Amino acid sequence: MTTMTTPRTGPNEPDRTPHDGKSDAAGSKMIYYFGKSQTEGDSSQKQLLGGKGANLAEMSSLGLPVPPGFTITTQVCASYYAAGKKVPDGLTESVAEHIRLLEQETDKTFGSNENPLLVSVRSGAAVSMPGMMNSVLNLGLTDQSVDGLVQATGNERFAYDAYRRLINMFGDVVMGTDHEQFEAVFDRLKTKYKAVLDTDVPTEGMRELCDAYKEVYRQHTGEDFPQDPYQQLIRAVEAVFKSWNTSRAVRYREINQIAGLKGTAVNVQAMVFGNMGDDCGTGVAFTRNPSTGENEFYGEFLVNAQGEDVVAGIRTPRPVIEMRQWKPEIYDQLLTIKDTLERHYREMQDIEFTVEHGELFMLQTRTGKRTGAAAVTIAVDLVSEELITRTQAIQRIPAEDLTQLLLPSFSEDAKRKAQVIATGLPASPGAATGKLAFTAREAVQRTHDGEQVLLVRKTTSPEDIDGMNEAAGILTSTGGMTSHAAVVARGWGKCCVAGAGELHIDANKRTMTVDGKTFTHTDVLSIDGATGEVMVGEIERSEPTLSREFETVMQWSDEFRTLGVRTNADTPADAKRAREFGAQGIGLCRTEHMFFEADRITAMREMILADNEPDRKRALDKLLPYQQHDFEGIFTAMAGLPVTIRLLDPPLHEFLPHDEKSQEELASEMNVPVQAIQQRVAALHEMNPMLGHRGCRLAVTYPEILVMQVTAIVEATIACKNKKVDAQPEIMIPLVGTRTELATLRELTERTIEDVCKAKGYTDKLDIPIGTMIEIPRAALTADEIAEVADFFSFGTNDLTQLAFGFSRDDINTFLPEYLKREILEVDPFQSLDESGVGQLVEMACEKGRKTKPTLKLGICGEHGGDPSSILFFHKVGLDYVSCSPFRVPIARLVAAQATLQ
Amino acid sequence: MTTMTTPRTGPNEPDRTPHDGKSDAAGSKMIYYFGKSQTEGDSSQKQLLGGKGANLAEMSSLGLPVPPGFTITTQVCASYYAAGKKVPDGLTESVAEHIRLLEQETDKTFGSNENPLLVSVRSGAAVSMPGMMNSVLNLGLTDQSVDGLVQATGNERFAYDAYRRLINMFGDVVMGTDHEQFEAVFDRLKTKYKAVLDTDVPTEGMRELCDAYKEVYRQHTGEDFPQDPYQQLIRAVEAVFKSWNTSRAVRYREINQIAGLKGTAVNVQAMVFGNMGDDCGTGVAFTRNPSTGENEFYGEFLVNAQGEDVVAGIRTPRPVIEMRQWKPEIYDQLLTIKDTLERHYREMQDIEFTVEHGELFMLQTRTGKRTGAAAVTIAVDLVSEELITRTQAIQRIPAEDLTQLLLPSFSEDAKRKAQVIATGLPASPGAATGKLAFTAREAVQRTHDGEQVLLVRKTTSPEDIDGMNEAAGILTSTGGMTSHAAVVARGWGKCCVAGAGELHIDANKRTMTVDGKTFTHTDVLSIDGATGEVMVGEIERSEPTLSREFETVMQWSDEFRTLGVRTNADTPADAKRAREFGAQGIGLCRTEHMFFEADRITAMREMILADNEPDRKRALDKLLPYQQHDFEGIFTAMAGLPVTIRLLDPPLHEFLPHDEKSQEELASEMNVPVQAIQQRVAALHEMNPMLGHRGCRLAVTYPEILVMQVTAIVEATIACKNKKVDAQPEIMIPLVGTRTELATLRELTERTIEDVCKAKGYTDKLDIPIGTMIEIPRAALTADEIAEVADFFSFGTNDLTQLAFGFSRDDINTFLPEYLKREILEVDPFQSLDESGVGQLVEMACEKGRKTKPTLKLGICGEHGGDPSSILFFHKVGLDYVSCSPFRVPIARLVAAQATLQ
Repeated sequence: MTTMTTPRTGPNEPDRTPHDGKSDAAGSKMIYYFGKSQTEGDSSQKQLLGGKGANLAEMSSLGLPVPPGFTITTQVCASYYAAGKKVPDGLTESVAEHIRLLEQETDKTFGSNENPLLVSVRSGAAVSMPGMMNSVLNLGLTDQSVDGLVQATGNERFAYDAYRRLINMFGDVVMGTDHEQFEAVFDRLKTKYKAVLDTDVPTEGMRELCDAYKEVYRQHTGEDFPQDPYQQLIRAVEAVFKSWNTSRAVRYREINQIAGLKGTAVNVQAMVFGNMGDDCGTGVAFTRNPSTGENEFYGEFLVNAQGEDVVAGIRTPRPVIEMRQWKPEIYDQLLTIKDTLERHYREMQDIEFTVEHGELFMLQTRTGKRTGAAAVTIAVDLVSEELITRTQAIQRIPAEDLTQLLLPSFSEDAKRKAQVIATGLPASPGAATGKLAFTAREAVQRTHDGEQVLLVRKTTSPEDIDGMNEAAGILTSTGGMTSHAAVVARGWGKCCVAGAGELHIDANKRTMTVDGKTFTHTDVLSIDGATGEVMVGEIERSEPTLSREFETVMQWSDEFRTLGVRTNADTPADAKRAREFGAQGIGLCRTEHMFFEADRITAMREMILADNEPDRKRALDKLLPYQQHDFEGIFTAMAGLPVTIRLLDPPLHEFLPHDEKSQEELASEMNVPVQAIQQRVAALHEMNPMLGHRGCRLAVTYPEILVMQVTAIVEATIACKNKKVDAQPEIMIPLVGTRTELATLRELTERTIEDVCKAKGYTDKLDIPIGTMIEIPRAALTADEIAEVADFFSFGTNDLTQLAFGFSRDDINTFLPEYLKREILEVDPFQSLDESGVGQLVEMACEKGRKTKPTLKLGICGEHGGDPSSILFFHKVGLDYVSCSPFRVPIARLVAAQATLQ
Repeated sequence: MTTMTTPRTGPNEPDRTPHDGKSDAAGSKMIYYFGKSQTEGDSSQKQLLGGKGANLAEMSSLGLPVPPGFTITTQVCASYYAAGKKVPDGLTESVAEHIRLLEQETDKTFGSNENPLLVSVRSGAAVSMPGMMNSVLNLGLTDQSVDGLVQATGNERFAYDAYRRLINMFGDVVMGTDHEQFEAVFDRLKTKYKAVLDTDVPTEGMRELCDAYKEVYRQHTGEDFPQDPYQQLIRAVEAVFKSWNTSRAVRYREINQIAGLKGTAVNVQAMVFGNMGDDCGTGVAFTRNPSTGENEFYGEFLVNAQGEDVVAGIRTPRPVIEMRQWKPEIYDQLLTIKDTLERHYREMQDIEFTVEHGELFMLQTRTGKRTGAAAVTIAVDLVSEELITRTQAIQRIPAEDLTQLLLPSFSEDAKRKAQVIATGLPASPGAATGKLAFTAREAVQRTHDGEQVLLVRKTTSPEDIDGMNEAAGILTSTGGMTSHAAVVARGWGKCCVAGAGELHIDANKRTMTVDGKTFTHTDVLSIDGATGEVMVGEIERSEPTLSREFETVMQWSDEFRTLGVRTNADTPADAKRAREFGAQGIGLCRTEHMFFEADRITAMREMILADNEPDRKRALDKLLPYQQHDFEGIFTAMAGLPVTIRLLDPPLHEFLPHDEKSQEELASEMNVPVQAIQQRVAALHEMNPMLGHRGCRLAVTYPEILVMQVTAIVEATIACKNKKVDAQPEIMIPLVGTRTELATLRELTERTIEDVCKAKGYTDKLDIPIGTMIEIPRAALTADEIAEVADFFSFGTNDLTQLAFGFSRDDINTFLPEYLKREILEVDPFQSLDESGVGQLVEMACEKGRKTKPTLKLGICGEHGGDPSSILFFHKVGLDYVSCSPFRVPIARLVAAQATLQ
């Protein structure tokens, strides 16, 4: 094995001396071999060899039983596209040379009519993209070599079955012939032979089928099925390259925000067969439970089947533990390999294997996808097992996946009363409720129309990606824990129940039947992704209970991190929840929501409709006690921790009804002519409300609103202090663009604080910091001036992103999808902070602000405050804290720790 | 005269040793004396002494006959406000001491019953604000001293007339008693004495009038008219301070964008009287003609009148040249003083003088306001006269005033046929047409409703400021060239005809009668501010002809300036006009206007309504020849100069009709159901269109639009080249926010250019620069990246201002007035570039862009490109050119020169 002596290189993969002198135009090695005789790659080379190829090489080096093969690099795929979809010079020759190496190692000959070498051709990008890329098996079979396979195996039916599978796959994947065309021919043949299952068709029928398939191939491609195995191979390689840019592959990368890859590698590997008889089989497994993280060997296998049969979810496989009965020595060998791999990778693995006539072959290993709960448990367990350190554990948990742990589940009480109509596999945890949607398209449409739906399918395929993404949950009637639906759903943290075999789903009729009862698109079901239960109606949910391991991870995070984590909360209930999740205060308490409740909105509207200051003040006087009460509740829930209250921000028209009926109701309620209301609505109408009369501009033109709000804050603070509750309010003035704006409003705020204290006879010094949002580019640009009159800055990155890009969040969907698809933007800048543009403003404001006032407190309260990659940035530029929604507080704590460790 | 030996200090005015030890709390000298015995101030001290005070001191130093007096500094006014409207400590005493100095110099005694000293109290800020501030004359008269004045003058009627004027003015200005109250009493008295004119009332009546006035005073103030002259004085001083912040003064500063002043100074000066008989008189004059700039002594005087009578426009005065008949020696003395002042100040002066019993007194001199034409002529003449240099001339012309020279005037042909109903004074040049508005309020209202109106008044007063500002022109029936209407209108460059005595204007009845014919608010008149003619109906206008002096100034400017000047033009006609004004190319050619013409809009709408690319392309094919033709015309008009064409920018919905009727018409025209159009309009609706699907975002989603436009540009270029016309197109891609956006579209643009050249068989290299607008903050922030794929940047400062501030230009009026009023913003940032915020982005983008590409061409095409203060900034940050509307090109040329000279 040459690998072990070849010096390992990092992910940059500099050129190596090619072992066979076959390189591309730039001199880069195009193909890496792996096998017993030699192995050139290793697991660090995922960018170049793809995940699958790099790990096949690694396993090969570890001495595991891997069928030999070779990997065409992702760079070749990139060159293929760069040349306008042209196979690079020299590739064909290099492939042929590597086939010769394979022939030597396997002692078989490609295309031989005696003992033919057959290969699989599989895609494999640096990032795993389940089901997205095509593969072709049994390659190398021709009219001539099929006889060789008969001779070599002594199994004629198997040989022709393999040949017809090749023609079918090659026709479908390489030549674009519809799979249905082959199926139709097979169905006719089964009728002829009165066969129910494929396996009922006799050998003679299989030969006939090969001829019929070749005819289908000829009709649809206008040419004969290629009889040159090298031509088959090079065309299959090209097909893999092409599959990199199919719309579904592009879409998958979009949804998963995968960018910056070169292309896919191509793995050509000697075939082993799990379908040559009952001493054959195939399986996929995880080295630990990917749903809970428990340390158990977890997977599924099928006897006498090819690998694709497990993943495709056509037959429901058996739990891997049952291999102990079937082939105990193989099971033990697998357990040993599981340990070897885990010790080697120090990580939970997802493996594929095949048993050919009682001999085990490893076809794949990769880091296993898992739920957030599993990620946490596995990380903590690996620390206990001393395989990794605590800092490694912290760095390894994908913060985003913690959301799954924090999702509510169905309440046990409610579930006891629920009518369970079926139980499938608990494929991806969570609790989802919705009406039934029977196609992906329907799921997308109805979700956009505001419905909550469950996508209900016999099985899902990559074409269903959009619908799966939009649906509240996914329910399938066939397929196992590793089926397409299950894998994709787990990756997203979306609730999924798979393989609920009792269900009979008819997508055409749009019905689902179980136990004689029929459900349609109007029926509501609930699915429990943690138990696999399918229940009738909507079930009450309960708050999640957090595992011991979760608490451990949070504790470790808090030890490592330096960045504070606050929450955005507008109610005492939210404040309480966030505090339980570890929030260290409120970074954004929006006050406008407080005005929408039934008893308040009337006074708010009176205020807006008033055309003079005294009337406005009268209406505000009615709102004062409500606000005071709300603040008291929030201060109490956050006692001892800071609460940043943002003064009224949205434009006033948002509080008035816009449809005629509601306007008439309001008019009669307020005893004014409806025209008065319509006039006010019209007067408040703005062309671009985002850029209009809102934020501190309201406080400048209607200072009495600010005075009322500040009065409420101060009165609530004093009431708390009198009850010995440690209220720590901070007043935040939104949408400031100039120093004078803030200076003017700060003065009014300070005067009001003084006035209220005097009126209330409160003589202690009330130290209420007054700061501002930095959400207007000009504020960031002039942060040095603004800092002169601010005690703190809180970045409003939503608005800052809108203004820095000139994007209206409400309107962006007309062009954003196109921008993402064409990679003009790598990610939606409202999801992850745009570091080079918006981030520059943030950094500039931090520097300028701190230059003026070194003690200036800096935070961020836009939605980016809960986004992992953005949090890393906020740590880097030196913010004191991030503030995010309560459910994202644990994520922020974890990422803050990861940021420190980076 | 101590002044000449006192070392002069610059405008910073450091403290001097107070001559009398009377200083304010901070040790600053509060009062500056001027007179024959000593003079403490000089004309460099305008900030401290106000313009009037500084120049009185200066004239006094020059030995001109100035009545002695003293000036209370603007700092005292500021202290007054800082202390919450409290007269600063020590001021009363200091005033009294200075009165004693005056008594010594005049040999009169304040309040004396033998030979009383009378003084005037006048305001005077650093910037002249005509009519805005109040003054009180004859101060020092009491029941006792009025007898002294009788004794001293031997003219009892005069003395009591002076006393009743004081009571009236003091009551009005100091105590806020309505002037009408006094007038009513006077009217009753005139009836009693059967007097028609004031002058018909006998001495006895004047005494009676004083008593009656004192009674009015008592009734309205609740106290007696003060008999202590010092008390009169200090209260008058305080009234001047107060007048600084009356709403009309604040409004004047707003309109004229005057900010940063401390307050007003107060000038207390010994009275001289122009109304003591027929050997007395008063006048105001300019040392050159303020309308044309001609070097002639130009002004008006009234015999036996007080100064206010001339300015107030109550009596129509006589031309100053007639003084030659009335008092030839005084006239000669004035001519000598005119020369002295011009040689001293090296600038045209605006003077006020009074003749008391044949002795001339100078009451004021200041730099005279003038029209743009006059400014140009005077500057050029002063250079010929070797009083100033060419660089001084260039620096002295207020660039903004050039607009007046470039305004169209009525065509001579049309005027020959016009019906002239009256001829007034040519008070402020220009040509205005409009319906008649009889009050300022009406003028404001109707202008806002979209009408064009002329404000028609007997005379105007400061209360009319708003209406004067809004009206297209101003017409008065009384008052001279120096009346309020005339001075204000000239300052603004607004067309004004004053003192058209034939007109009888009745504001109550809303009629204007002349020659028995009555005009109402529905009638349209035209006024010619250059000739004073008032004409019936709308008169055709013609382009302005530019004077030789104007050409000289432009020539000098071009010699000095380094900044290029281009124009924003969308048509060949505009391009031609701008070129005549000296534009060096087109900096912004908007293409969207080309789609609105009748024959094009249909194809444009077809394009928008198409729901697939082929249909869209078909519609675009129809638009192509129009665009090609437009571009050819523009290239031809600008042959040899660059033409920057901006690709389609506005959101598509702007091209669709929004009202139902037009939608129905369009539907039947296009033969589609109206619902289809409504659906498309609804689909294109955006919450914030400013931040929506527009600019290059359109080109990303509909690349075929870009392809059509670029095709048209290239075809037009080739057509020109074939005709030997030197077309120099530059393609500008709008609203770019990221490098990838521009890179993607640049690639498509380059490919299209190549394709068209190939299709047209054009083999020469077409070198068309491709650049972008910098109008999105993110573009400025990442200009280094964007510059990699841009040949030029053009700053779109309109959008950049919108986004940097988060202000929608369409909606800003709901709060901008309040922001200006409260000085949260000093100026409308859409008028003058906000240097510290938006300017920072501009500067940053220049630096970053040039760092990447030192040859990067930088320009600006937002409306700030024609704003003088913004142009200075653009010069400073190193832009290559500014681009502005054709009429502003000369202004930009001049300012560009001024920028170089700064």
